[in-house]
Amino acid sequence: MNPAPLATETLERLRRVATATLTTQLFKLGFRNTFLSGAKPVSPELRMVGEALTLRFVPAREDLAVFDNITKPDYPQRAAIESCQPGQVLVVDGRGVESAAIGGDIYMSRLKALGAAGCVVDGCVRDFASIRTLDFPVYARGAASPPHPARHLAVDWNVPIGCCGVLVMPGDILVGDADGVVCIPRHLAEEVARTGADLDDLEAFVLERIKAGAAVPGTYPPNEKTRAEYEVWRKKRG
Amino acid sequence: MNPAPLATETLERLRRVATATLTTQLFKLGFRNTFLSGAKPVSPELRMVGEALTLRFVPAREDLAVFDNITKPDYPQRAAIESCQPGQVLVVDGRGVESAAIGGDIYMSRLKALGAAGCVVDGCVRDFASIRTLDFPVYARGAASPPHPARHLAVDWNVPIGCCGVLVMPGDILVGDADGVVCIPRHLAEEVARTGADLDDLEAFVLERIKAGAAVPGTYPPNEKTRAEYEVWRKKRG
Amino acid sequence: MNPAPLATETLERLRRVATATLTTQLFKLGFRNTFLSGAKPVSPELRMVGEALTLRFVPAREDLAVFDNITKPDYPQRAAIESCQPGQVLVVDGRGVESAAIGGDIYMSRLKALGAAGCVVDGCVRDFASIRTLDFPVYARGAASPPHPARHLAVDWNVPIGCCGVLVMPGDILVGDADGVVCIPRHLAEEVARTGADLDDLEAFVLERIKAGAAVPGTYPPNEKTRAEYEVWRKKRG
Amino acid sequence: MNPAPLATETLERLRRVATATLTTQLFKLGFRNTFLSGAKPVSPELRMVGEALTLRFVPAREDLAVFDNITKPDYPQRAAIESCQPGQVLVVDGRGVESAAIGGDIYMSRLKALGAAGCVVDGCVRDFASIRTLDFPVYARGAASPPHPARHLAVDWNVPIGCCGVLVMPGDILVGDADGVVCIPRHLAEEVARTGADLDDLEAFVLERIKAGAAVPGTYPPNEKTRAEYEVWRKKRG
Amino acid sequence: MNPAPLATETLERLRRVATATLTTQLFKLGFRNTFLSGAKPVSPELRMVGEALTLRFVPAREDLAVFDNITKPDYPQRAAIESCQPGQVLVVDGRGVESAAIGGDIYMSRLKALGAAGCVVDGCVRDFASIRTLDFPVYARGAASPPHPARHLAVDWNVPIGCCGVLVMPGDILVGDADGVVCIPRHLAEEVARTGADLDDLEAFVLERIKAGAAVPGTYPPNEKTRAEYEVWRKKRG
Amino acid sequence: MNPAPLATETLERLRRVATATLTTQLFKLGFRNTFLSGAKPVSPELRMVGEALTLRFVPAREDLAVFDNITKPDYPQRAAIESCQPGQVLVVDGRGVESAAIGGDIYMSRLKALGAAGCVVDGCVRDFASIRTLDFPVYARGAASPPHPARHLAVDWNVPIGCCGVLVMPGDILVGDADGVVCIPRHLAEEVARTGADLDDLEAFVLERIKAGAAVPGTYPPNEKTRAEYEVWRKKRG
Repeated sequence: MNPAPLATETLERLRRVATATLTTQLFKLGFRNTFLSGAKPVSPELRMVGEALTLRFVPAREDLAVFDNITKPDYPQRAAIESCQPGQVLVVDGRGVESAAIGGDIYMSRLKALGAAGCVVDGCVRDFASIRTLDFPVYARGAASPPHPARHLAVDWNVPIGCCGVLVMPGDILVGDADGVVCIPRHLAEEVARTGADLDDLEAFVLERIKAGAAVPGTYPPNEKTRAEYEVWRKKRG
Repeated sequence: MNPAPLATETLERLRRVATATLTTQLFKLGFRNTFLSGAKPVSPELRMVGEALTLRFVPAREDLAVFDNITKPDYPQRAAIESCQPGQVLVVDGRGVESAAIGGDIYMSRLKALGAAGCVVDGCVRDFASIRTLDFPVYARGAASPPHPARHLAVDWNVPIGCCGVLVMPGDILVGDADGVVCIPRHLAEEVARTGADLDDLEAFVLERIKAGAAVPGTYPPNEKTRAEYEVWRKKRG
Repeated sequence: MNPAPLATETLERLRRVATATLTTQLFKLGFRNTFLSGAKPVSPELRMVGEALTLRFVPAREDLAVFDNITKPDYPQRAAIESCQPGQVLVVDGRGVESAAIGGDIYMSRLKALGAAGCVVDGCVRDFASIRTLDFPVYARGAASPPHPARHLAVDWNVPIGCCGVLVMPGDILVGDADGVVCIPRHLAEEVARTGADLDDLEAFVLERIKAGAAVPGTYPPNEKTRAEYEVWRKKRG
Repeated sequence: MNPAPLATETLERLRRVATATLTTQLFKLGFRNTFLSGAKPVSPELRMVGEALTLRFVPAREDLAVFDNITKPDYPQRAAIESCQPGQVLVVDGRGVESAAIGGDIYMSRLKALGAAGCVVDGCVRDFASIRTLDFPVYARGAASPPHPARHLAVDWNVPIGCCGVLVMPGDILVGDADGVVCIPRHLAEEVARTGADLDDLEAFVLERIKAGAAVPGTYPPNEKTRAEYEVWRKKRG
Repeated sequence: MNPAPLATETLERLRRVATATLTTQLFKLGFRNTFLSGAKPVSPELRMVGEALTLRFVPAREDLAVFDNITKPDYPQRAAIESCQPGQVLVVDGRGVESAAIGGDIYMSRLKALGAAGCVVDGCVRDFASIRTLDFPVYARGAASPPHPARHLAVDWNVPIGCCGVLVMPGDILVGDADGVVCIPRHLAEEVARTGADLDDLEAFVLERIKAGAAVPGTYPPNEKTRAEYEVWRKKRG
Repeated sequence: MNPAPLATETLERLRRVATATLTTQLFKLGFRNTFLSGAKPVSPELRMVGEALTLRFVPAREDLAVFDNITKPDYPQRAAIESCQPGQVLVVDGRGVESAAIGGDIYMSRLKALGAAGCVVDGCVRDFASIRTLDFPVYARGAASPPHPARHLAVDWNVPIGCCGVLVMPGDILVGDADGVVCIPRHLAEEVARTGADLDDLEAFVLERIKAGAAVPGTYPPNEKTRAEYEVWRKKRG
């Protein structure tokens, strides 16, 4: 749970590599289930990179999911949020529920104030319009008004969770862009950041070529000639 | 079906209280199922407050769901729309169907011309782009092109219906914002409008504090000190 | 598979008739299942009209859905794309899957360069933000990052497929607007283009009337008097 | 609502014709949506034929769906059951819910005592094992223990309803066997009973032939020779 | 986690009270979500009563969900099973997945050998036919052949879990019959066992009456006269 | 499409190895998606082993899915059935639809008469009760009465298809038992039959031990001592 911090270079690479590229590199390494399908960007223009801080909800029970309980400081939702370290992403197993919110602008603002890198919810958030103004990346299934105890009870944090059908271990690396969120197993972050940055460069070149009328065969994947041209292009670009 | 009209003050309060706050107040009163999950705003920048006028559809049958029938003035869909009073919201049990439209810009424009406060559909609408220009709040599951008799037959109006999994009685109060739509049982409207307005004020103060760096514990819910500061803030604000 | 090309007049009409009108005309002809429910516009401001070029995916198998195979020129996805003729719409049976992308900005740019009229996917696309800048109509269930072999294998093209629950035959006419996509059986295209254009004109007139305060009964469908006024309106309009 | 009773001959035919045959005959008449998909036989060995008595539920609300209300004689569920006439089938719009029961052995026994022909529920029943012993045909999505007010409120009876995606009008004819339940529009009952009985006879003959090794082409549908042999077979059989 | 054991009398009552009765009593106490919808009896003729021992799965990851890991003694699935005490029910959050099995006849036999009272799985089991012969109550969504690491990884046991949409705390009381499984919050077990036993007796009397032709009103709920007759009946019955 | 026939020994092994064992062996070879989830045995007491003959349906269109067309000998459904060779399993992409039948006792009887090994349908069948009497293994999602053209049109056979989310290539090996159906890529059939038979033997021994009170650790997977005892057991057993 306290692994060596990621190298700055790795983080910088992850900040500019597309999630499409990262899932492709993970696929090549044998990982077919790394995309948190259903977690859509509240603010598609923002990118997100950070380490997972996890939070787990279970179905509500009428005697436990009451405001007196859920407002205590040691309630797992509150404890997790207040524990948040700079650069972390709060990742919430909200059970895919679309009829209640896991939180709203108050909790998202608190996470931002603590230096969090973002928040990913397998469920919904309230105050959708307000969250869009926060300049803080949030990914969720959508908006819902009701308070979470109408459906959920928080029971754990900092444990492995499932989020949108994907395993998220505390410390895993979450990367988000307009396409959605990928969870990179921590020990693979350096590798996919590096190979992903290379692939992203290549795809930028390929896209230019295709737009200019090149056929897909020979261009992508590049044949020897295209590869050579790419090397020239890359050097020019710096 | 002809209850006393809501007080002007209640309506004014409901026009500025968030649906997130209203569902919270209803939850505290024991109501866990008041949010019409799935009905998303066509025009998220508009707010909606009004009394429910209900309309019920059932599955189409090939011999009944034909244009000759559905264009008669006493067809329930048409009768309901023409009966609409100023301040009402047409609430439609469209069975959650996403492959046909319950109506489009013509019906929405007619509702607007009659002074309706909005329209909520557990189903889809056509002419999505045009409806966005109407300055009339519509909530639906999304857009669909096909005419409703491809899937539906209207059979009743002004009866209790289920809409997006929530009971809507004629005369209930529907409130919508960017997060979605809440149905307030009519006899509770005055109470939740009043307590909701108070909570909304408090949350505005809390949000300011959290953005300024306050921790959640002590701030929300407010401890005695925060509560006192809030009272000062509120008086200043007027 | 090589039917007579559509008349220019038919294509022009289809470019301005709403999909809501087209599905209505098809419904009147007995076709209740022509709307590709779930395929939403990536760029809602664009319209699309073209002939279907189909592509079929099946579930991936770990030994076949590998990059070595899917990058060969005769891989059905690549063969279909490179075969695309001006005016065609690539229609993809992506099995409704939301956890992988059928393609991204490279393939969409290639289709555009070839003169394709658009792309419809019963599944997801990557590079969502980039595709929005292409001025090329794409319809899909949403965005997803992972490469298609994580879920799919392409096995066939130019065969009848199901797409979003609708039969699409090669050569059928696909029309898309902000409401979504309709598939018109090819032999009916001329007829629904013609009758649809008439209905669209009438509905424009009706909408004006309704906005001006007319009641639905008598206006839509028009009674004799309204019909006469419409004829005057239409002549004025030219 | 008080149409002429069905002829005894029609009822007798419906008691022996397969639902597969009846849906086929309805399909030939243009009806594609007559099968109550999801309503499975609790007792597959029983057959059911009767006239629809309908009952409609909506989502529960905590202040209305309470035992004090739902045990009143005029509560729609109770009123409908006590109103049941011999030969009727209680058809319940239970909203497809699988987490609560619409009723159990007490209500089913009451219906049987009143001479009801059966019960069809778009939802669940409790006391599954006990109902299986009643010699009374019940069709439902499955078993569930909780009382209906945990999810539902009855609001109407003797009105058109949707049940398992099919329109059921009061007085329509419900027929059930091991494959499930078909709803026959009342005015078509005589016709499909008659043509269905003929088709059922033919299919019995065809099945014998196919089991004896005949190929499908020529046998089903029968060519002239097979048709002639069938006529002989039918006369022998009486 | 080590509460006082349940009284023998409570356990005996729970062994004969229907789950329909228990969910009714819980509903009256304000609990609307106690039924594990989707967990169907593999052996409907068996009843189950026991205390929850919980086990939690999350989505598989290709590098962790491998046989080398999942066969270690401290793998949570194995640790939970070997820890099982007589009278416990293993309750498994199998994420509702129907394409892999959580276990089969070997694990169920081990649980039985340890004196477990049963097993409830929000997911599937393999060796369905063999499990039916074990005289051991198992509830699951159905049968599936694949080993669990194809979809799952066990990460925790003896923690609160969601199972079929219901909160299950370690030590809660699970009761199962042919209708399905109810989870009784432990502190309510004595109360609902007692009141449930009374209600079950009454309903047995009511069912007799209804079968004999009594109307529902006056019989259920019983009016004064029926209540008196019931008291006589109950005394006779002993 | 005309690979070497499977060895008799392979077929014999597959006839006695559990599908749970086969999916386990395939998982060890890297195949995580081989189980046709949702295809349940109509006759759970039968086993099935055979080579895939595939058939593909797409959504119906009102002008094409008519009896005149679907009864022609070259209609793909009929052509596929009549082409069936001894030992083949007809595998049908029925699109998961539960509101229409792909076929009934006539088609299943014809397949049996032709020596087919069974039939697997990603969809429903009619004549459920009759099919149960045929001594012919059929796997489907359940029963439904309506004829297939109410929902489907057959367009292809002997092509790769998806069935219940799994790729099935013509010639792949389908094995079914009470747990369901696994599709074995043809080139792996010999290997998994052989290793599966060994594992099945071991598991039979392990089950005996566990039932006799052995703990799971040490027994399964077997440690050296258990492995030695197993070898003795196996030799005794012959």
